[in-house]
Amino acid sequence: MAHVLGQNQYGKAENRIVRVYRDSTRHEIKDLNVSVALQGDFEDVHLTGSNANCLPTDTTKNTVYAFAKEYGIESAEAFGITLARHFVDDTERGVVHSARIRIEEYSWNRIKTPDNTSRFIGSEEVGHSFVRDGGEIRTSEIVYDGESVQVISGLKDLIVMNTTNSEFWGYIKDKYTTLQEAYDRILATQVTARWAYNYRGQDGEAQPNWNRSYQHVRRHLLEAFAETYSYSLQQTLHAMGTRVLNNRAEVDEVRLELPNKHHFLVDLTPFDLKNENEVYYAADRMYGLIEGTVHREGVTPVIPVV
Amino acid sequence: MAHVLGQNQYGKAENRIVRVYRDSTRHEIKDLNVSVALQGDFEDVHLTGSNANCLPTDTTKNTVYAFAKEYGIESAEAFGITLARHFVDDTERGVVHSARIRIEEYSWNRIKTPDNTSRFIGSEEVGHSFVRDGGEIRTSEIVYDGESVQVISGLKDLIVMNTTNSEFWGYIKDKYTTLQEAYDRILATQVTARWAYNYRGQDGEAQPNWNRSYQHVRRHLLEAFAETYSYSLQQTLHAMGTRVLNNRAEVDEVRLELPNKHHFLVDLTPFDLKNENEVYYAADRMYGLIEGTVHREGVTPVIPVV
Amino acid sequence: MAHVLGQNQYGKAENRIVRVYRDSTRHEIKDLNVSVALQGDFEDVHLTGSNANCLPTDTTKNTVYAFAKEYGIESAEAFGITLARHFVDDTERGVVHSARIRIEEYSWNRIKTPDNTSRFIGSEEVGHSFVRDGGEIRTSEIVYDGESVQVISGLKDLIVMNTTNSEFWGYIKDKYTTLQEAYDRILATQVTARWAYNYRGQDGEAQPNWNRSYQHVRRHLLEAFAETYSYSLQQTLHAMGTRVLNNRAEVDEVRLELPNKHHFLVDLTPFDLKNENEVYYAADRMYGLIEGTVHREGVTPVIPVV
Amino acid sequence: MAHVLGQNQYGKAENRIVRVYRDSTRHEIKDLNVSVALQGDFEDVHLTGSNANCLPTDTTKNTVYAFAKEYGIESAEAFGITLARHFVDDTERGVVHSARIRIEEYSWNRIKTPDNTSRFIGSEEVGHSFVRDGGEIRTSEIVYDGESVQVISGLKDLIVMNTTNSEFWGYIKDKYTTLQEAYDRILATQVTARWAYNYRGQDGEAQPNWNRSYQHVRRHLLEAFAETYSYSLQQTLHAMGTRVLNNRAEVDEVRLELPNKHHFLVDLTPFDLKNENEVYYAADRMYGLIEGTVHREGVTPVIPVV
Repeated sequence: MAHVLGQNQYGKAENRIVRVYRDSTRHEIKDLNVSVALQGDFEDVHLTGSNANCLPTDTTKNTVYAFAKEYGIESAEAFGITLARHFVDDTERGVVHSARIRIEEYSWNRIKTPDNTSRFIGSEEVGHSFVRDGGEIRTSEIVYDGESVQVISGLKDLIVMNTTNSEFWGYIKDKYTTLQEAYDRILATQVTARWAYNYRGQDGEAQPNWNRSYQHVRRHLLEAFAETYSYSLQQTLHAMGTRVLNNRAEVDEVRLELPNKHHFLVDLTPFDLKNENEVYYAADRMYGLIEGTVHREGVTPVIPVV
Repeated sequence: MAHVLGQNQYGKAENRIVRVYRDSTRHEIKDLNVSVALQGDFEDVHLTGSNANCLPTDTTKNTVYAFAKEYGIESAEAFGITLARHFVDDTERGVVHSARIRIEEYSWNRIKTPDNTSRFIGSEEVGHSFVRDGGEIRTSEIVYDGESVQVISGLKDLIVMNTTNSEFWGYIKDKYTTLQEAYDRILATQVTARWAYNYRGQDGEAQPNWNRSYQHVRRHLLEAFAETYSYSLQQTLHAMGTRVLNNRAEVDEVRLELPNKHHFLVDLTPFDLKNENEVYYAADRMYGLIEGTVHREGVTPVIPVV
Repeated sequence: MAHVLGQNQYGKAENRIVRVYRDSTRHEIKDLNVSVALQGDFEDVHLTGSNANCLPTDTTKNTVYAFAKEYGIESAEAFGITLARHFVDDTERGVVHSARIRIEEYSWNRIKTPDNTSRFIGSEEVGHSFVRDGGEIRTSEIVYDGESVQVISGLKDLIVMNTTNSEFWGYIKDKYTTLQEAYDRILATQVTARWAYNYRGQDGEAQPNWNRSYQHVRRHLLEAFAETYSYSLQQTLHAMGTRVLNNRAEVDEVRLELPNKHHFLVDLTPFDLKNENEVYYAADRMYGLIEGTVHREGVTPVIPVV
Repeated sequence: MAHVLGQNQYGKAENRIVRVYRDSTRHEIKDLNVSVALQGDFEDVHLTGSNANCLPTDTTKNTVYAFAKEYGIESAEAFGITLARHFVDDTERGVVHSARIRIEEYSWNRIKTPDNTSRFIGSEEVGHSFVRDGGEIRTSEIVYDGESVQVISGLKDLIVMNTTNSEFWGYIKDKYTTLQEAYDRILATQVTARWAYNYRGQDGEAQPNWNRSYQHVRRHLLEAFAETYSYSLQQTLHAMGTRVLNNRAEVDEVRLELPNKHHFLVDLTPFDLKNENEVYYAADRMYGLIEGTVHREGVTPVIPVV
């Protein structure tokens, strides 16, 4: 047969897990969605019907839940590294050559309650009540191939808007151009960001503080968006990426996907009203989509284009 | 013909509008999704093909955008009342008998920027940059029938979780019962709440402070959820509703829809691990769905069951 | 306390069930999403924390799956009636006063395979392979209150389009009107329909053939949409509703929700092109929303407005 | 600056377009969602704020709509090739080096109407009424880099199920394995398929018949799914891919993403019922996810792993 089995992978996707820490009456929670994908010596599984080399996806799921107990979840990244190493290093006969763990993390805030109205006996403060923070979702992808680790963290669904300090003009005009130049427009986007760490997981190499790094990268993205006087969303994208590289030594590469969520000024002149950049129609589709990578010189980019 | 045209209504749905206030360099924004539904003398439109009594949905859309300029948007409720009154009171020959305005509001927070890193000349503080608050969506429904106004405000997608102080036992056991009694379980739900105001829009009647009322109702719902030691989600529902009625005189009725978002304790015994209420599987479906109304005595409930 | 517990109900929602019939090598399947809501004597559950009158939602779920085996699923409606009667008639001490079963049904087609290419030994025809029919979802709602049954069937997500035979003109013009009259437009909508049966479930009363009735109602809706020369979507709605009443004696009332999915003619004149009703932009939002009920004279409408 | 601008692209995404052909009273329609992404000489746009090399996304949108009129839409693939060539070959100063066009196509069926009940004068047959085929979405991706064309077509949301002829056993057992071996299980998946054509768009090279090719590939995928007696979803995946390669010479590579949509047998023994593979719970998440490529020997795979 002249057909070749090419890249293939499998695993259990979207394992929803909530891990509660009850070390005091002030509980802590981690809320994750974990997806496992394994590559390895799986040709027979595809070609012969023999499952002798197949670690069932059900087992990969069980491992996720068991590891949440055995190792805890300090951060999604550290948890993912532990999982990825296990699948490659511990599966029998080394049939798993590479493991990719993708994790979405949903964050929660505490519900604040006034001390003096607490209704049940013995409680001085409510430490077990949470409200989901509906903002961006934190993402991470960990790949381990038996030799080194690659961590790409990120976020998605972070929606931001500047109501001024955005222009767009001086562009190419061809026979299909009708757009009017804009000297003061709304700039709004839903940020998807991914950034690659230079951590490789070698012996003796300390892991970055993933949670702190995330908070800082997020802050730099927001501040760069807010503080950039923009002549194009591309320019804003570049400013956001370089801001992260300038400030976070543990990051080597940043990739951003920025849909230009159009806000169209509504023409109110038929109603004898003047719209002084006050009333906008927020469109769903179509939208501009601006994507780009910024990386340190000499580094080979690893974040895939999608 | 022995067929009767019954209840009917129409209008433009989901008008997405962003209103910017630029009175200072510190901008303010309102981000709404406005749906209009009109009832009235529309039999000919349905039966004869005559549109003489039809105010086009396109016109209702234009009116929404024009009113955002003419009257501004102090709150969704006040904006909706102005719109509803207009459609009923101002449409020619009184063909519109009743107008219902439904509004979703999306809230935004300011992006905080450190003063000293601001990158563009002349700015001391960034007052035009916002990040979407991804939490609950604020809702309101305003009905005006030519005589009085009814306002039902609400929220949806407010996701909350208690990691303890929830039990469930002592229920009916029949031949289809397999559920084990629970003495310490996770209680999580995605709150949909609606509450009816006793404001009627009569001459000289002052409107409540809608925005402040919303913040207080929301807070009471959260606090009641957190502070209730729960023997059933029904009991929590009741506590949430009564807490609002006890504290907000402007509200006469509260209705809650509370899906019981199940978190199942994962059985780790096959792996020689003990799960001490630490590792949960968060299920999507099926889910319990608990719905109920609490209202003041002597008041006729107006919030529809869906 | 001067607060009253008003309408309340609970049950397990979205029980996803697939029922396979293997009576021959030609299998049959039913694919349903079943939601249960019970009303009854549940005041103590809400007020006192006693669950003595609470049939757990978990039990209602078990009952759905067990009944799929015990009674089979000939149609969603018949299955729902059996379930609703059980919850009211069989729950201990008559604490359930009324049960509402809502069902979504997803339909599947057989995968056709040529006989002579069948790859596995002993098979003459593939009778166990199905492809999901991605069209409309069939819906039904069954309510039983201990005395009589009410069945409301329906469909949703049936998307239809007429590329001509639709006009819209002669409407009210006010100061907010900018819409141009249209003498040949696209009319497209996503049909949500519900229809109420006059079946009451009394002793000796035969059930309609629910599956056949569904197919006929669906066909009449489609044919009426196709064959109506339309001066408004309201007129089309009315034609669709009356067509069903004229042809299906078992139905007393039809309610339709028809979003007017706008297709805007693209202005190609800047590119020296003439758009002769050929190129359209299909918009997501906003959209017109036209809703209405048609019922037989003398019948009290029962389908709720949402 | 030691930072490098890496891969970047932009364009207008999700241009929803409906193209109507009115050459007779029997209309034809094409319903597409077109996304444009351009790569090229855009460094200044990112770095300096100069838009001199920026073809606005708005212009790319206009081009899509104008080309629908100028060139028509015989197939998504041919339309995409024309668009991609235009952006690279015709943009001034050759600033666009490569263009990628992604298209989703939604298919529609005619509404059948009985000839003799047609309600409007002069019509013998209704040729302008359509109902959306809710099944799979047809996809295509066309890339042109100034020298050659690469077309990757596909489909998504094709949901299929085998109610028997699927086993899964003989797999690795480790300390986290609890899965029971299965000798007769339901196999259900939601097919995402992409296949790469060997067409390169060279001078004199004829385009494949894209529409016919699509129909055949789709049919082979379905037949292979139905006719494969499966020992793992991997094996079924491989059978589906090779079936296409064996039968369609114009295709060099097939990649499949197959979520294993689990159907769990419900344990009815607590209710004294025996579940003879009849009653299943259809789970949403987690799910197995099986992905793989099959390609001709000697061909370099081009379909990206996502």
